[in-house]
Amino acid sequence: MKIAIAGSGAMGSRCGYMLHQAGNQVTLIDLWPEHVTTINTQGLSVETAGKQRFVKIPAAFPEDVHDDFDLILLFTKAMQLNDMLNKISHLLTDNTAVLCLSNGIGNLETIKKFNSHLDLLVGTTLWTSELVGPGAVVLKGSGYIEFQAIENVSHETVIKINDVLNEAGLDARPSNNVLLSIWKKACLNSVLNTFCTILDCKIMDLRKSQYTPILTKRVVSEFEAVAQAKGIPLTAELASKTINASLAPNQAGDHYPSMHQDIASGRHTEIDYLNGAIARMGKELNIPTPTNTLITELIHAREDTVIKN
Amino acid sequence: MKIAIAGSGAMGSRCGYMLHQAGNQVTLIDLWPEHVTTINTQGLSVETAGKQRFVKIPAAFPEDVHDDFDLILLFTKAMQLNDMLNKISHLLTDNTAVLCLSNGIGNLETIKKFNSHLDLLVGTTLWTSELVGPGAVVLKGSGYIEFQAIENVSHETVIKINDVLNEAGLDARPSNNVLLSIWKKACLNSVLNTFCTILDCKIMDLRKSQYTPILTKRVVSEFEAVAQAKGIPLTAELASKTINASLAPNQAGDHYPSMHQDIASGRHTEIDYLNGAIARMGKELNIPTPTNTLITELIHAREDTVIKN
Repeated sequence: MKIAIAGSGAMGSRCGYMLHQAGNQVTLIDLWPEHVTTINTQGLSVETAGKQRFVKIPAAFPEDVHDDFDLILLFTKAMQLNDMLNKISHLLTDNTAVLCLSNGIGNLETIKKFNSHLDLLVGTTLWTSELVGPGAVVLKGSGYIEFQAIENVSHETVIKINDVLNEAGLDARPSNNVLLSIWKKACLNSVLNTFCTILDCKIMDLRKSQYTPILTKRVVSEFEAVAQAKGIPLTAELASKTINASLAPNQAGDHYPSMHQDIASGRHTEIDYLNGAIARMGKELNIPTPTNTLITELIHAREDTVIKN
Repeated sequence: MKIAIAGSGAMGSRCGYMLHQAGNQVTLIDLWPEHVTTINTQGLSVETAGKQRFVKIPAAFPEDVHDDFDLILLFTKAMQLNDMLNKISHLLTDNTAVLCLSNGIGNLETIKKFNSHLDLLVGTTLWTSELVGPGAVVLKGSGYIEFQAIENVSHETVIKINDVLNEAGLDARPSNNVLLSIWKKACLNSVLNTFCTILDCKIMDLRKSQYTPILTKRVVSEFEAVAQAKGIPLTAELASKTINASLAPNQAGDHYPSMHQDIASGRHTEIDYLNGAIARMGKELNIPTPTNTLITELIHAREDTVIKN
């Protein structure tokens, strides 16, 4: 299959690499010049279990790609999604299926607003990856991709995409309820990412405070209220179960989550597509969301104090 | 006058020193063994404008003091006030006036609950001081003490205390509305201290974010609602004016406020007597205080992640 990865950061590079290894014709699209150049000159550096290899996969800026793809995987950060769609608009033909795997809430709305006639699928993934420098990723652990056709996609296409992902070892799982999974993951990140950022601690350190469950309950109950109004069957109980599982002694990570890393590196965070999405939707729906609103504002204020203009 | 300082930290030491220099018989009461021992062996080290001097003022643990004082100045942190009152209860005679200058909201309630028959005054001070080690303070800038008789204190006693403080250069100002000043200062600290702690920044850095005024408004409007219900004439406008003045370009401090220092040193903060007092009173009065409640919980969670048990 002819596949483009739109947004070839940590996760995009990982999936692009796995799809390439399985024999697909993959193009890595990205906006970071150093990243694109490095991949094209030395190959994509992929480290697995301490072993590094360089893999020749073509990388390019969106404007330099002129091809007909069967599938475009969207992997940009949520806040860069609209910009990326604009930049790859010439690639979005009638024969191209688009599968959005970007994290966060509101991506579907962004894409539909951009173009409501796309052959659209959305999904979520539990695969992880670390971008350690331009052109270099480190792969650890395993995961899966849960995805669902949203519009203009035949059952046959779903099967085809499913097969391609599975042949690449990505453990694809067609779903009838992918929005629930997306919201559940966003809710998890809206707790772990934001708390660790505000409290300047690792995920495992959240276990030290009796206030973690109290604060979690506040975030989660607002998620439930907004989700229910949106017809998404996320309950506070279900969300809490996921969060508690991530905070269990044998699970709770000895690392800082991505939002903490964003702030430490002076980058913008995905807050507007996590707690911020709940705050925004709550306002539209007249549902009070004081906790998610305040957390969103605090994270934005934190960005303002660390990001140099 | 025979004066005891109950809680001889940075501010208690400063006032004790100034009162001692003016000829009063001062005893510094404190619970920190190294501090008491150092003062008694080498004297209190006082640094002003780069010049250090050692001043012989007696220091003692509460249980070792057996004297009749005309005046006891309470300078403990709000969360240690009840403990200190218990430890100096043998000093609280019918002839002893007690002036509480501890920061925060709720100290009056703590004292009245402890003993409703004290000759009681409360106040607030804009003097500052830094405790740089056991037995050593650094004095900078100037300030004043605003105070008011609350119960069982004659006008004559107020005048006497006022004169003693002024003779020591402490710029005393009898007030008819000291609770307003205490709440105004607490509101200022509930914004600057907590924001700088959560955002891990200096006071001047708060000016960088467009979210500072938004977040400030949320804190301040809840302060107004609770204050009004308590009969204290603090308005959001008045509080904002004070806060904005502290954030003005020529004022905004190139330093971390005390709460940030508390967290950095792994100490408990005064949060329960700042935003936490508003959250507690709001709950009692059925006034919604989601912002101050959440900020209180976040600061407590922060304490839990840094304080070693």
